[in-house]
Amino acid sequence: MAKPNMEDIVSLAKRRGFVYQGSEIYGGLAGTWDYGPLGTLLKRNLTNEWLGYFIDGRPDMYQIDSAILMNPKVWKASGHVDTFTDPLVECGNCHNRFRADKIDTSKCPACGKENTFGEPRQFNMMFKTQVGPVQDEDSIAYLRPETAQGMFTNYKNILDTFYPDLPFGVGQVGKAFRNEISPRDFLFRVREFEIMEFEYFIPENIWEAKFEKWRTDMHGWFKHIGLPEDKVKEIEVPENDRAHYSKRTIDFHYDFPSLGFDEIGGLAYRTDFDLKNHQEHSGKNMEYRPKDGSAPFIPHVIEPTFGVDRNFLAVLSNAYTEDEVEGEKRTYLKLPAHLAPVKVAVFPLLKNKPELVAKAKEVHKMLRKEIHGEVMFDDNGNIGKRYRRQDEIGTPYCVTIDFQTLEDDTVTVRHRDTTDQTRQKISELSF
Amino acid sequence: MAKPNMEDIVSLAKRRGFVYQGSEIYGGLAGTWDYGPLGTLLKRNLTNEWLGYFIDGRPDMYQIDSAILMNPKVWKASGHVDTFTDPLVECGNCHNRFRADKIDTSKCPACGKENTFGEPRQFNMMFKTQVGPVQDEDSIAYLRPETAQGMFTNYKNILDTFYPDLPFGVGQVGKAFRNEISPRDFLFRVREFEIMEFEYFIPENIWEAKFEKWRTDMHGWFKHIGLPEDKVKEIEVPENDRAHYSKRTIDFHYDFPSLGFDEIGGLAYRTDFDLKNHQEHSGKNMEYRPKDGSAPFIPHVIEPTFGVDRNFLAVLSNAYTEDEVEGEKRTYLKLPAHLAPVKVAVFPLLKNKPELVAKAKEVHKMLRKEIHGEVMFDDNGNIGKRYRRQDEIGTPYCVTIDFQTLEDDTVTVRHRDTTDQTRQKISELSF
Repeated sequence: MAKPNMEDIVSLAKRRGFVYQGSEIYGGLAGTWDYGPLGTLLKRNLTNEWLGYFIDGRPDMYQIDSAILMNPKVWKASGHVDTFTDPLVECGNCHNRFRADKIDTSKCPACGKENTFGEPRQFNMMFKTQVGPVQDEDSIAYLRPETAQGMFTNYKNILDTFYPDLPFGVGQVGKAFRNEISPRDFLFRVREFEIMEFEYFIPENIWEAKFEKWRTDMHGWFKHIGLPEDKVKEIEVPENDRAHYSKRTIDFHYDFPSLGFDEIGGLAYRTDFDLKNHQEHSGKNMEYRPKDGSAPFIPHVIEPTFGVDRNFLAVLSNAYTEDEVEGEKRTYLKLPAHLAPVKVAVFPLLKNKPELVAKAKEVHKMLRKEIHGEVMFDDNGNIGKRYRRQDEIGTPYCVTIDFQTLEDDTVTVRHRDTTDQTRQKISELSF
Repeated sequence: MAKPNMEDIVSLAKRRGFVYQGSEIYGGLAGTWDYGPLGTLLKRNLTNEWLGYFIDGRPDMYQIDSAILMNPKVWKASGHVDTFTDPLVECGNCHNRFRADKIDTSKCPACGKENTFGEPRQFNMMFKTQVGPVQDEDSIAYLRPETAQGMFTNYKNILDTFYPDLPFGVGQVGKAFRNEISPRDFLFRVREFEIMEFEYFIPENIWEAKFEKWRTDMHGWFKHIGLPEDKVKEIEVPENDRAHYSKRTIDFHYDFPSLGFDEIGGLAYRTDFDLKNHQEHSGKNMEYRPKDGSAPFIPHVIEPTFGVDRNFLAVLSNAYTEDEVEGEKRTYLKLPAHLAPVKVAVFPLLKNKPELVAKAKEVHKMLRKEIHGEVMFDDNGNIGKRYRRQDEIGTPYCVTIDFQTLEDDTVTVRHRDTTDQTRQKISELSF
């Protein structure tokens, strides 16, 4: 079967309730998307798995949930007010605007006229708003363009509340906003998105070892969410492309349909840039005092970061599979079971046989109690169609209650990837 | 012991890492708060319980996760651009601004001068921003002041994707923003907050029955999170105080420390106001077509809504308890076990006995696997102090490994509320 393209993914995502266009009934709002019921479940599973993988239960990790609106001084200290910009050009003929580094500026891609662009100007990508009843220069605030600063501004709170030993990490999953000049490629480049990341505070001298440790764990994460090794590659970011605060950065790229390899995460050694700047701008002491009485110092930081929506898109793209079953084309999502929005679906063989429906409801109820995750009930249409519907949303197992069930308490368990069916006792079901 | 006041709650929340002031190192940003590690865990438990109570696994419920930035036409259709305002007055002497309905305008509460206020003007509480590279009137967008419109704009998507029978509900947990003139009272009146709510779509003729059903279930929810009946009361909102879209509204008030009774949730019958307006403004047909072939119609809506932060504050306030143990004042959080950020803490009796520490780590590891939720390890200070630390963050059980454990595999289980201690076999521990 042909390799899927991005349109296939977008189409399935909409058709089956994973992702809809934001504000769709009003023609949308560029760069925004709404997660539908199945997408919301998949995203919840993804972020919960991430928390389980990197944060929960680890004595060296602290999860926080900081506000999107922050004091504007944060973004001066972080460098975002001055440098978080993209080069913007405007066509002198049709007045469309573009990112200068993404187009060939000799000819306008919108109207086709040549030599219509002037010099690019720097366009700040932070969304501005005004806070409070007085609307002037002093009331300007920004929607956070990254979640990291929430960890830096709370670093001292964590020190004062939990007295952690170094190294320790502070992480969160949360929304961020960037006013992209040209949003594109579905969930890939958007204006509102979600980040899962943590700042790992260390003494400077171990940065290389910890960088390697998290690099390995990041690969472990991508494996954990089912991305094959040959579809994830590392890009060492050269000095002139690195963010202003970073001394070393590795980007992790995934081989997206249509798009090709592009970023789904990154690992940055941010040095002591952020804490030092916050100390300077806030006047608050950001030093860590070792418990053995040795000299206080400002910790350095390693930051593993993951785009939730991009990880979601990678998982969805990777799962999208077409094959042929009994001469018919079949589309299914080969999702890892721990990410699948629906874990098991339960069917009565026939809708109009009350004894089958009652038994199926009983099994459905039992599984709902036993399984951590969604268990669906479906009695609509013939069994083949119901299988196909579950295949398309990535449900790993379907359980069918038939007349034999009423005699010996066994059911048919049908496996998504192989379409194999096995007969099992209800009491022995385990998923 | 004396009734706690709001300052006690704020102080414990900060001291133990539940809630910090937003952007604290820069003097804060009024009306924003950051959840610290324990607050984040408590909030996660709260929202997960809410999803479990109202949404998950219910065949008539669909969870979504819609964007904060929406097409501005949404807010014209919903009425927010025209009517989502508070009356604002400015003192002619000191130029401080106030909500006209919250102060006595005969004398300025800031400078004390009399008769300095003019007529109030209507101040729109939506935060404004601009989207895209062209910054003009057409690029204006708002941060959503409520999550409900995300459900209404996706109502048609849900119909087209899932073909639900009426009644069905669409819900979400997500951030919303209101530019309050005077944020106050800790998490109570803030500019950035979280809502958990759903829109329940019904045929008009059953609105009273469904209103009653959800009213009962809302009380069930407050009970589920441990709020005593006498601290939750209903307020029937009179017509002139109801939101412009509502034909009946009940507010649920909780008896907060210092504040007294104030709103933690609401139940509104929104009629077909929203869908009808969206149909008119978007030109999209919002009718539901019954499967029995009867005439299509626009569904009516019942909306149960809950402020996450206010529910969080109610839970925290209600849990805050002071008593006396062995002649000493003790502060503890009487949190329901399913909401407690830490479920169990494990202690080796002595830190400097490697065999006790090893055994405690083994028990800690075992419990981490078996228990859904956080299990903490603490070997710092004497046992009494460790109990007090866990009491203050609401950990229901502490397990201590002592010398007897090494002989007979039993441990001491200490109960938070009673401070009772029981001896139990490790193999029989269950929380």
